[in-house]
Amino acid sequence: MPVTDTDLANAIRALSMDAVQAANSGHPGMPMGMADVATVLFTRYLKYDPAEPKWADRDRFVLSAGHGSMLLYSLLHLTGYARPTIEDIKNFRQVGSPCAGHPENFELPGVECTTGPLGQGLAMAVGMAMAERHLNAEFGDDLVDHRTWVIAGDGCLMEGINHEAIGLAGHLKLGRLIVLWDDNKITIDGDTGLSTSEDIPARYEATGWHVVECDGHSFADISRAMDAAVKDDRPTLVRCRTIIGKGAPNKQGTAKTHGSPLGDEEVAAARKELGWDYPPFEVPGDIREVWLQNGKSRAAPHAKWQERLANSDQREEFERRMAGDLPQGFSVRDHVTRLLGEPKTVATRKASEMALEAINAALPETVGGSADLTGSNNTLTKGLGTFDRDDYGGRYVYYGIREFGMAAAMNGMALHGGVIPYGGTFLVFSDYARPAIRLSALQRARVVYVMTHDSIGLGEDGPTHQPIEHMMSLRVIPNLDTYRPADTVETAECWELAVSRKDGPSLLALSRQNLPQLRAEAEENRCARGAYRLKAAEAERRVILIASGSEVETAVEVREKLEARGIGADVVSMPCWSRFDAQPQDYRDDILPNVAPEKILRVSIEAGTTMGWERYTMVNGLRFGLDRFGASGPGARLYDHFELTAGAIEAKIVSTLG
Amino acid sequence: MPVTDTDLANAIRALSMDAVQAANSGHPGMPMGMADVATVLFTRYLKYDPAEPKWADRDRFVLSAGHGSMLLYSLLHLTGYARPTIEDIKNFRQVGSPCAGHPENFELPGVECTTGPLGQGLAMAVGMAMAERHLNAEFGDDLVDHRTWVIAGDGCLMEGINHEAIGLAGHLKLGRLIVLWDDNKITIDGDTGLSTSEDIPARYEATGWHVVECDGHSFADISRAMDAAVKDDRPTLVRCRTIIGKGAPNKQGTAKTHGSPLGDEEVAAARKELGWDYPPFEVPGDIREVWLQNGKSRAAPHAKWQERLANSDQREEFERRMAGDLPQGFSVRDHVTRLLGEPKTVATRKASEMALEAINAALPETVGGSADLTGSNNTLTKGLGTFDRDDYGGRYVYYGIREFGMAAAMNGMALHGGVIPYGGTFLVFSDYARPAIRLSALQRARVVYVMTHDSIGLGEDGPTHQPIEHMMSLRVIPNLDTYRPADTVETAECWELAVSRKDGPSLLALSRQNLPQLRAEAEENRCARGAYRLKAAEAERRVILIASGSEVETAVEVREKLEARGIGADVVSMPCWSRFDAQPQDYRDDILPNVAPEKILRVSIEAGTTMGWERYTMVNGLRFGLDRFGASGPGARLYDHFELTAGAIEAKIVSTLG
Repeated sequence: MPVTDTDLANAIRALSMDAVQAANSGHPGMPMGMADVATVLFTRYLKYDPAEPKWADRDRFVLSAGHGSMLLYSLLHLTGYARPTIEDIKNFRQVGSPCAGHPENFELPGVECTTGPLGQGLAMAVGMAMAERHLNAEFGDDLVDHRTWVIAGDGCLMEGINHEAIGLAGHLKLGRLIVLWDDNKITIDGDTGLSTSEDIPARYEATGWHVVECDGHSFADISRAMDAAVKDDRPTLVRCRTIIGKGAPNKQGTAKTHGSPLGDEEVAAARKELGWDYPPFEVPGDIREVWLQNGKSRAAPHAKWQERLANSDQREEFERRMAGDLPQGFSVRDHVTRLLGEPKTVATRKASEMALEAINAALPETVGGSADLTGSNNTLTKGLGTFDRDDYGGRYVYYGIREFGMAAAMNGMALHGGVIPYGGTFLVFSDYARPAIRLSALQRARVVYVMTHDSIGLGEDGPTHQPIEHMMSLRVIPNLDTYRPADTVETAECWELAVSRKDGPSLLALSRQNLPQLRAEAEENRCARGAYRLKAAEAERRVILIASGSEVETAVEVREKLEARGIGADVVSMPCWSRFDAQPQDYRDDILPNVAPEKILRVSIEAGTTMGWERYTMVNGLRFGLDRFGASGPGARLYDHFELTAGAIEAKIVSTLG
Repeated sequence: MPVTDTDLANAIRALSMDAVQAANSGHPGMPMGMADVATVLFTRYLKYDPAEPKWADRDRFVLSAGHGSMLLYSLLHLTGYARPTIEDIKNFRQVGSPCAGHPENFELPGVECTTGPLGQGLAMAVGMAMAERHLNAEFGDDLVDHRTWVIAGDGCLMEGINHEAIGLAGHLKLGRLIVLWDDNKITIDGDTGLSTSEDIPARYEATGWHVVECDGHSFADISRAMDAAVKDDRPTLVRCRTIIGKGAPNKQGTAKTHGSPLGDEEVAAARKELGWDYPPFEVPGDIREVWLQNGKSRAAPHAKWQERLANSDQREEFERRMAGDLPQGFSVRDHVTRLLGEPKTVATRKASEMALEAINAALPETVGGSADLTGSNNTLTKGLGTFDRDDYGGRYVYYGIREFGMAAAMNGMALHGGVIPYGGTFLVFSDYARPAIRLSALQRARVVYVMTHDSIGLGEDGPTHQPIEHMMSLRVIPNLDTYRPADTVETAECWELAVSRKDGPSLLALSRQNLPQLRAEAEENRCARGAYRLKAAEAERRVILIASGSEVETAVEVREKLEARGIGADVVSMPCWSRFDAQPQDYRDDILPNVAPEKILRVSIEAGTTMGWERYTMVNGLRFGLDRFGASGPGARLYDHFELTAGAIEAKIVSTLG
């Protein structure tokens, strides 16, 4: 008998239920419910090459409902990707297997992005679709001409970020974005009717989307809907009416199949129901062969594309961009030299704009933006052009009041490759974007967060807008480099480090208020060390003042007062903890000598929470900051109010020294 | 000439532009644009009593677009609230004035909630409307029968949380919720068309809302729309077509009026345009008088309500509930005594359910829920009933996959008063709710967050679902009490502390995996101290092991191994940092004596980031945890993999002691 689409889909179902059963953990319902839709997608629509998972012009496929990871692992395996192997799948959800509970881009090259935190996959796909159109505008149809496909569940659509993501996609008319909605009417708690009564297609249409429907278990109907999606010039939501856990006769259509193994008995019943008369993890040769052939045939366009690339005069630039390499010799040294020539007292958000003028001119791959705070974040430089539906070549995105959506879109752009995204909001609203910042770090995505108004120094907007705990709460995110530069030179240096980092995100915390230029030399990028001695004690060293950002100025003032009393004090500027912690022991010992507090008192000054600074001041040092919410008033007045002035700090240090 | 509605509205406009001008900071555009709508609301619809701002059956008014704070301050002042005075308004945005940059509920009794972080005001209003219906179901129309009104801007509607909030409100059919949308087509960056092309009314209709429109500068039309809103049994969005900065002749209708003072020249031009021929901050007597009369007349229902309350047999209970007092003698002691009688090895999420069975039975004011993880968060206890459109008396809310919306709704419920909300999700998704958790803390709202699956111990779901940095990032939020209990007894104690706290939120981090019962006595609530000595050293004390949650078990095992070697070790269980830090010095010195590490080595064990633990271990102590993302695999296997086992920890301690 010839192999049918149903056979192909049942191979996914069998692998999924077997792997979940073997792991005794996982989500069989979604892979079994969407197996038919995924089969149509991977055999007739998606453009991909299992032999070269990272081929630049491949379609991007995002499993936004990441808990259904076995769907993706099954597809990658069956279509012939080198990984996962059947052994990998047998070890689903075990330490060491690339088949993690949720798909992770750093485990398998065939996984475009890490999903599981609901809503973010679809929102990243928006960013991928933006990057695609942007690169298409620059490199043309010959090199860049692909789609972004998403499978999303009810959870992805119910999360707030869905509103931000589809609003952006509809506004930008991202017609190459197609979302396949697994409309199974089931969430973990039970029927979707428990918590929602929304008309989802109407909502999508309200934001400029094209919506089609299909029976998610009819191959012909799925194809018809996908054809309609491909033809339309708007982003498309394909409502796939499915039965969760389809094939498990006693549990399908219920929440019981969602997040638990089916159980041996029901797995056996499903084998019977599906006519799948093979042992666990075995896919019969003929079915395996047809899957492999499909994997090969979908890769046909790759060879032609290689030819076009070989003949393109943009080849070198395109390859550089997609490899994520910066242009030869890129550096901010010239810019910094100019800064030294004309020292400026400006806010670091302005210093950031000045650095960006140089960076954006040198790096055509940057794509900037702001969540409706362009003039405050100083993220727009001359000549970038607006990225919109009429000009995807523009390099500046008006993200709207969508911090989370912006951050997720930037993740998608960075993962797509070819662009380096940066985007701004107020530091306090890093909270809104935080789930995506975490995913930048986990996914090792080169995204630069420009977070201005970084302390009570912002003044009158008051406690709702004044970050207190934010720097510390961001420093604890693994693999995120956080920077709080003190002046124009440090800001430029931190920017250089941020855009040069290929394996993770960076976040710049910038002041609203003006700060003096403190650095008078710039032979090397001193921020690369994370912390460095800005001023050395002149009198006998009794104190080391450690500060970041706007408080480095305060530290310098405190030092002058102490030195005037004959108390020697170093000033250590510490823009980046993670970089400092990564320095060799001898460097760290030089900056912060391991001496008892009675001999050298360590003092931290940062207009934010003091918790955590014990790491550098030691418990017996002094920590100046703010462990309560701020207040509304002019910024300078607030520093007085909260006793974060050089005079108050000097007094406390002197009394501590005795 | 008789005082007209226009005169009343212009008083708002004048105060707003003058205050912003005097502060040289603020947002005049929104108050001037919405002055007409607000005048109609406060003179004809809103039920409030300036003499008793906290009257229980008042309508709630939420200025979701909090940057337009001068609108609210003007209204409270003009209608006769004791504060703000005209002096307060003259000191708008100055330290010490209750007229902060954004409205703050803890500064002015007339302010229902703290707004400014966009989208959250409206989402809190949903919670207020839920609380109103819930209390109405319990106490009847006589005591509880009011509406919730919101003014929201484009920012509030563009934020992701708007989707979650209106989805919930539409699903629950909260007909007493009315949102007045300031449709001025302007955001900070410019025209809304820069970033959105959404059909907002269609989106609201898609989620079950009633939508009406009006000319926001026609008093009659505004009234017509409000009448329609009041009549409909669905929540209503009133689209108010307005001109931002209306009255400022050269700047109105543009982003220039949004977030900056108009400037002296334009203020003068606006005076002319408005025919407002009075000095700054002066409101002529007749206009002032009409405003005051309106304030009085809107309070008319209050006296009748007082009569009904006096005659109600539910009076005592109603007053107790609204005062936020727990029933006399409430305690978990009986429950704890039972626990001691039959020690149980259960996950703390299960221990939480056990505690909740007792608490929900004792406290009729609790309203629980989960963001679609009911069975995982163990938040549903027997007999609560479902809160839905058919039964607002139910005490359990299926919030759907809406972590942020849930948290904001809980803030609204807590601020409404009469209920104590708690809600669950996974600890890792505290990130999704974080902006609302911050507002719980800032607003001093009694909300209890039930965050389960609190470490790599959750196992197979992998790094996307494994909290690493979360406990620490939550501990740095001012005024948030975070708890990580170790067993059934501690869990019950932490719950008791959480529901008993009137002035702020609490967060419980709970394990997915089983944990043994460690506490064998319970004469007092030992968690109230934040940390306590669970086990004292038997041999000479060389080590203090400090741990939280699931790692207290590990600490106990390590202690046994050390004692077997003749090394004395205390085990300190530390469920709550903020409570411990608030203890008297002598208690803290007793638990953690200030002795050099050579004499007593301090060791922290917590399956999360180690940053911050220096506070208790001192820099030269040892910190066991995880400063990287987790992995997918069975939980116990991950503890091995990351060397967080008693054996590995013992070895390191022994080698450190030398």
